[in-house]
Amino acid sequence: MDGRPAIVQSTSPTNDDTFLNLLCDGFGDSVLLGEAIPASCFSDWTGHAACRPLALVSPATTEEVAKLLRLCNDHHRPVVPQGGMTGLAGAAVPSADSIAVSLCRLTGVESVDRDAATMTVRAGTTLQTIQEAATQAGFRYPVDFGARGTCQIGGNIATNAGGHGVIRHGMTRDQVLGLEVVLADGRTIDLMNGMLKNNTGYDLKHCFIGSEGTLGIVTRAVLRLAPPQGESHTLLCGLPSYPAAVALLHRLRSAGLALEAFEVMWQDFYTMSCGWRDGQLPLPTSYPLYLLCEAEGDASHLEAALEAALETGEVEDAVLASSTTQARGLWAIREATGEFPVKLAPINFDISLPIPAIGDFVETAGKMLQQRWPGVRIVNFGHIGDSNLHLTVDGRSLTEDTPATRHAIESAVYQWVGKYRGSISAEHGIGLLKRDFLHHSVRPEALNVMHTLKQALDPHGILNPGKVLN
Amino acid sequence: MDGRPAIVQSTSPTNDDTFLNLLCDGFGDSVLLGEAIPASCFSDWTGHAACRPLALVSPATTEEVAKLLRLCNDHHRPVVPQGGMTGLAGAAVPSADSIAVSLCRLTGVESVDRDAATMTVRAGTTLQTIQEAATQAGFRYPVDFGARGTCQIGGNIATNAGGHGVIRHGMTRDQVLGLEVVLADGRTIDLMNGMLKNNTGYDLKHCFIGSEGTLGIVTRAVLRLAPPQGESHTLLCGLPSYPAAVALLHRLRSAGLALEAFEVMWQDFYTMSCGWRDGQLPLPTSYPLYLLCEAEGDASHLEAALEAALETGEVEDAVLASSTTQARGLWAIREATGEFPVKLAPINFDISLPIPAIGDFVETAGKMLQQRWPGVRIVNFGHIGDSNLHLTVDGRSLTEDTPATRHAIESAVYQWVGKYRGSISAEHGIGLLKRDFLHHSVRPEALNVMHTLKQALDPHGILNPGKVLN
Repeated sequence: MDGRPAIVQSTSPTNDDTFLNLLCDGFGDSVLLGEAIPASCFSDWTGHAACRPLALVSPATTEEVAKLLRLCNDHHRPVVPQGGMTGLAGAAVPSADSIAVSLCRLTGVESVDRDAATMTVRAGTTLQTIQEAATQAGFRYPVDFGARGTCQIGGNIATNAGGHGVIRHGMTRDQVLGLEVVLADGRTIDLMNGMLKNNTGYDLKHCFIGSEGTLGIVTRAVLRLAPPQGESHTLLCGLPSYPAAVALLHRLRSAGLALEAFEVMWQDFYTMSCGWRDGQLPLPTSYPLYLLCEAEGDASHLEAALEAALETGEVEDAVLASSTTQARGLWAIREATGEFPVKLAPINFDISLPIPAIGDFVETAGKMLQQRWPGVRIVNFGHIGDSNLHLTVDGRSLTEDTPATRHAIESAVYQWVGKYRGSISAEHGIGLLKRDFLHHSVRPEALNVMHTLKQALDPHGILNPGKVLN
Repeated sequence: MDGRPAIVQSTSPTNDDTFLNLLCDGFGDSVLLGEAIPASCFSDWTGHAACRPLALVSPATTEEVAKLLRLCNDHHRPVVPQGGMTGLAGAAVPSADSIAVSLCRLTGVESVDRDAATMTVRAGTTLQTIQEAATQAGFRYPVDFGARGTCQIGGNIATNAGGHGVIRHGMTRDQVLGLEVVLADGRTIDLMNGMLKNNTGYDLKHCFIGSEGTLGIVTRAVLRLAPPQGESHTLLCGLPSYPAAVALLHRLRSAGLALEAFEVMWQDFYTMSCGWRDGQLPLPTSYPLYLLCEAEGDASHLEAALEAALETGEVEDAVLASSTTQARGLWAIREATGEFPVKLAPINFDISLPIPAIGDFVETAGKMLQQRWPGVRIVNFGHIGDSNLHLTVDGRSLTEDTPATRHAIESAVYQWVGKYRGSISAEHGIGLLKRDFLHHSVRPEALNVMHTLKQALDPHGILNPGKVLN
């Protein structure tokens, strides 16, 4: 990365005590210090690098966020923005010298505009609150994932969170029409657009979405709402090969069905998950791949497409859920991932690959891992319509499950991802955990431009230093 | 705009003759000078500020674009990127001291990936070529507008072009998965992502999409392809009021119909357009508003929704096209806009407003214009599902249709747009024509950050100086 602008977080000209006095003077009860800081803000759901920050401040308004950043910027103090702490890349983990800024008091749905199908929210509002408010207004906020009750929309935006339904509705980025952001120096920029078409200069909101709190702190947003979900059908198929899964993806789309989920489980995954469940298997464990699909649209179109796929051999066997209970049973097989932390010692990968290459990647990466770590157990499933693969290595199958081995496995997989021109992070972000692997997915010139942006918007490097970029 | 970084295009340290010698040495037959430069590159479809550039260079590869920008940057020479010259904001209009860079030789569809439903293209490829290649591969490239045979995808991306179908498929931005861009200093950044999920740091492509050639020159792109269009229905309705149009929008969406177009014509527009046509009117001219809607989905769902809308009084009368010919006849009424340049002396506005406010805006802006220019004739139609209104003032109805009057009308309308927190450009961009009105839609702090980005990525200000920002 020769010649790229250095991001050096300048040393604070003020000692800790003086600065903390200024902080307490300015923010009173909103400041917590030392033992009073709750452990819940020391790390995220990864538990990675847990650390007590120098102080925790919880501003209740945009103006307070701005005032806080001005102070920290003037004194060159590192600031770590925090939402629900459910992140999976360490982006909200504080350092010992940092001021953690919790958005937990900047909450609430400000308004729902039924005519425009939009919602204006404050950054600290939980995803679940937003989903419920959307439903109540006759709409749907279509981004959804397990942390919904705890994660905050500001964090969702800062990390461009994915989740269920991306295949139809896109990531969090695609739901954001407008933003309010506070820059490192405390300037507030009002990008609270609520319109679908707006071509007035650079679309600055995209600089902040997915930047993991390194370029600004999101304080408010305007979100798009989708119509409520229509009747949907749940289907489990046994497939002969990966190319058959891709062919089926296009067949269903061309039949005019709106796919809400297209989850491909490799045989290793299906067999393991079914082994964890009692009762009769919906399909035998003999197929190389399994597809769990949820589609909205005309049942007759789905049936016709399925019949054609059975005829061409794209699908070898299929179960179409005839009740909600049956659909839930099929989903339970895929949702075995929720049991991974208990039943495995999982080393999880959230990666993207070009859709045509995913089948080949699973095979060759598996062989590569087997060669270096003989006997290693790997399970694979993917939202392949989104180009997203979740490969999981079970640490219990390693001779020695040490941090060094885990790091070596990560290095090997990410390097392999780079060979396929894939992405080392599909939806979780980079944070601390993947920062040192970023070069496998981002070319030096692009990394260089990221550094240029960082330098331009946060010249003292106070915002979430060490996250995403080093 | 106090304190914003100055964008001063530095004076070239090299005189014209010396520089042109260097240019001819480096680019040979790709350079045209003086009289040899075709007039087609002096202005865009607006005809605004036509000007012969110092030279026209047509590089055939990304490497040549890079080499050209390095040379121009070293000598602080203004560069004006040019596509098909069909823009409607003057963004590709050269200045007398500038080097115009035509992408017309960097053409071709490099590949179509059927599995991933993506296409890799070079910047100079026309929209029509892309649409045809998509259709041939069994897909659809869903952005479409009248200039399709001439405009180039690089220009579409640089201006984030809109057009038909935005309500369903979004703007050009939403079709772009990956980009290759050459920066002002000749560095090429490879952002040729082809994956739907990719959370690896800042999503830099969004800095360049819609930046109108002021931050970099797009040389290649990866585009998403949509499934082919299904059976669609064309409907013309007479409506009692603007709120009825909004209610109908939600009713049709909630009925599970995929709206391909939702065009609202005010009575002024409908009456005028019908007056230009022979034969029987599909609906009388007595309704305050008319909706032309194209919807994909189950005909029975559409009929049921329409019946309910007629019952509640949202719709007063309706015609559902029973043949392609009849559908084409209904569209002809809306497509009267194509006749504006011949039949009116149009002053066109391409603006966005919050959806709930569009009806009120049409009324109050109309009154305001009538008050200042008594007898002025205004016609309105809008893609209201996209928040986009096209208001047209007929210059022939003014006492004096002079540049000064036109400028005064523009100032008045854009100021009115600002009052409604609307956008002075929905889909055409800012370029030269709207630059001095930008502050009506963009707050000073946001403008300031745009200047910061420009300064960071193009420190000598060589890329399309004076466009978008001043």
